Amino acid sequence: MMKAVILIMDGLGDRPCKTLSGMTPLQIARKQLLDRLAVEGETGLVDVISPGLPNGSDTGHLAILGYNPFDNYPGRGPFEALGAGIDLRSGDVAFRCNFATVGPDGVIVDRRAGRITSEESAALARDLSEMSLPDHPDVRIIFKPTVEHRGVLVLRGSHLSPRVADTDPHQEGARVIEPNPMDSTEEARTTSEILITFLRKASQVLANHEINRKRIGSGLPPANHLILRGAGQFRALQPIQQRFGVGCAVVAGGALYRGVCRAAGFDVMDVAGATGTYDTDLGAKVQAVMSAVKSYDLVLLHVKATDTASHDRNPARKKEMIERVSQSLGPLYELAGSGEIYIAVTGDHTTPSEIGEHRGDPVPILIWGPDVRRDCVERFDEVSCSRGGLHRIRGVDIMPIISNYLGKMEMYGE
Amino acid sequence: MMKAVILIMDGLGDRPCKTLSGMTPLQIARKQLLDRLAVEGETGLVDVISPGLPNGSDTGHLAILGYNPFDNYPGRGPFEALGAGIDLRSGDVAFRCNFATVGPDGVIVDRRAGRITSEESAALARDLSEMSLPDHPDVRIIFKPTVEHRGVLVLRGSHLSPRVADTDPHQEGARVIEPNPMDSTEEARTTSEILITFLRKASQVLANHEINRKRIGSGLPPANHLILRGAGQFRALQPIQQRFGVGCAVVAGGALYRGVCRAAGFDVMDVAGATGTYDTDLGAKVQAVMSAVKSYDLVLLHVKATDTASHDRNPARKKEMIERVSQSLGPLYELAGSGEIYIAVTGDHTTPSEIGEHRGDPVPILIWGPDVRRDCVERFDEVSCSRGGLHRIRGVDIMPIISNYLGKMEMYGE
Repeated sequence: MMKAVILIMDGLGDRPCKTLSGMTPLQIARKQLLDRLAVEGETGLVDVISPGLPNGSDTGHLAILGYNPFDNYPGRGPFEALGAGIDLRSGDVAFRCNFATVGPDGVIVDRRAGRITSEESAALARDLSEMSLPDHPDVRIIFKPTVEHRGVLVLRGSHLSPRVADTDPHQEGARVIEPNPMDSTEEARTTSEILITFLRKASQVLANHEINRKRIGSGLPPANHLILRGAGQFRALQPIQQRFGVGCAVVAGGALYRGVCRAAGFDVMDVAGATGTYDTDLGAKVQAVMSAVKSYDLVLLHVKATDTASHDRNPARKKEMIERVSQSLGPLYELAGSGEIYIAVTGDHTTPSEIGEHRGDPVPILIWGPDVRRDCVERFDEVSCSRGGLHRIRGVDIMPIISNYLGKMEMYGE
Repeated sequence: MMKAVILIMDGLGDRPCKTLSGMTPLQIARKQLLDRLAVEGETGLVDVISPGLPNGSDTGHLAILGYNPFDNYPGRGPFEALGAGIDLRSGDVAFRCNFATVGPDGVIVDRRAGRITSEESAALARDLSEMSLPDHPDVRIIFKPTVEHRGVLVLRGSHLSPRVADTDPHQEGARVIEPNPMDSTEEARTTSEILITFLRKASQVLANHEINRKRIGSGLPPANHLILRGAGQFRALQPIQQRFGVGCAVVAGGALYRGVCRAAGFDVMDVAGATGTYDTDLGAKVQAVMSAVKSYDLVLLHVKATDTASHDRNPARKKEMIERVSQSLGPLYELAGSGEIYIAVTGDHTTPSEIGEHRGDPVPILIWGPDVRRDCVERFDEVSCSRGGLHRIRGVDIMPIISNYLGKMEMYGE
């Protein structure tokens, strides 16, 4: 039975960098194993959504999992909530949240409340989640902290709407925004009222919280406010097993990636040391993939730090991260040598590491396996892969191509 | 702040020509600068609309500006009218017109009225435009002559329709056609009545016009009839600034190109010597582009004569025109060397110059700039560019790709 592993290096695509002698990080990286996969496999370019359109990691992953984001993207909140382990139901409205420090005048002093610890935010969260709102007894409030100052808020009830304003002004020194309705529906008005009531009560709870009294006592900024962004209403996606005939698992540190995959019906593997940061334990993640591939048709392995380096405008660090990833794949390549595993490698968008922002340039892709049509490309990078046998495809083409190799695509016609 | 220049050589694509030793005009042309841009940039092929579909200059430009012509093409009349400087309003119905010579039996003797001079047609037009129609007091007639026998007619009023027949039979010796309604709507019937009344009155005015008496006296065919084609109803397009975040200007001699760009919200640059013909002042046009690029994000430079040579079935002249264009770009290339200007070069369709008609073969494209992913292509022609890093894209992809390079595309997702 054939299996597949898809490695997504976040923000992998790049442009020629002045500081790398006009090469991209992928071009200059010593990445023997990735190049070997390119030599032995087929390669190409991917417009993750469409030519020239810069996409987020959320819409990019949705496309790579085979879901047209224009039909299926609910906003980022629901993916983060799923990634945080909340079991969403259709109709739930979810938000990304920060604990923040807000002055008496409503102005944001610190969007991250001095990056409070995960332990502190867990203690604060206990007094926020499941808070009851007398005027809305049918609405359930679910708040779950994730890492440091970050968390997710879910409103569960009937007749809610995601069409309310972000309260996060995205900059310090600006006032917190009211979660006003963004259309004239009753659902948006009701949701806005619920949020206003909840956020007011939450601020009262936080202001008097023991954790914050301690922080103020130690001269630290208090986490006295929740700010919200990325509202979205969850609708179940058609499960990937049904769509492409494959049972799937994901190994990823970041909540977003776990959440998008969960929305598509993946099982989420927990790996100690998979942090979604530079210090992630790549060896442990690859081992988890090798273990999961015994039980699943397809395992997605996500590495975030290539994008982090891009946003940090550090082409050299991106190159190093690519090299580390390539080295870490050794055991998987050995296992795949049995001839029963395909390996695909690509990115979810381009983040030129001298710009530090997402751009719409295509990303390279390689597909390696026992019976792929080997092309003449010998290196895995943006320019070499432009001569590859896969040509220029779209993100939504990747899953059908892989499922086809696994013999799981249903025939159309007779 | 990054800027972009798009050079469109009309009808640029071609096929191997017997008279050019089996080469295309682009392949055989000595065009050092265009080839240099190909060496230093990325290249590919463009299906302006879709593979194999021959397109007009109007639909081709619409696609290249990023508007799907199947949703946005109003017919040619409105573009010509905009290009002639008429400020169209939504609902206006516009036609291209010729002054023609028609015999007493209604048969066309000369579709161009002996190519009357622009001065003569301007004098005739003064007695046609703003003519009042007693039965349709609410309809305004706007007629504007352009070059020689050519002009545009605009009907302004409520409840008009472009669904009326061309009166131009497109060949001499045939009878002028009645502008009959082409569907059963009241709008089409009314528009047909208005046109019949107007054209009858126009013929009376022209028959007795001093200009025509003089022409007949000199043995020249009189401009005694207006023949119409290309009916279209104007609807405003979403402005390109809003669509792609770029402020745009166009340098073009031909009315159509100025008109399509105006419809998309471009500012139109007037350049003395930009004629849209072989004798166009390329140097002046390039200087105008270099000046406009100071104030606009994107400047479109259009050259018509490559297509004229194709329709004239003159591959050698097309080759010469390509060489002249390449030479004229020197100052722009020098300016762009500052690293702040992208240059894209392509065509709006293929016109094989041994056939003399539009065909649906793709056209080559190159994009040159400080951080594009340089591919291995070293010549700018139909065959070399088929190996380029851009692969095979569509006309509507060009603007997103350029706007992406300018950092003006809005991100989709987070």
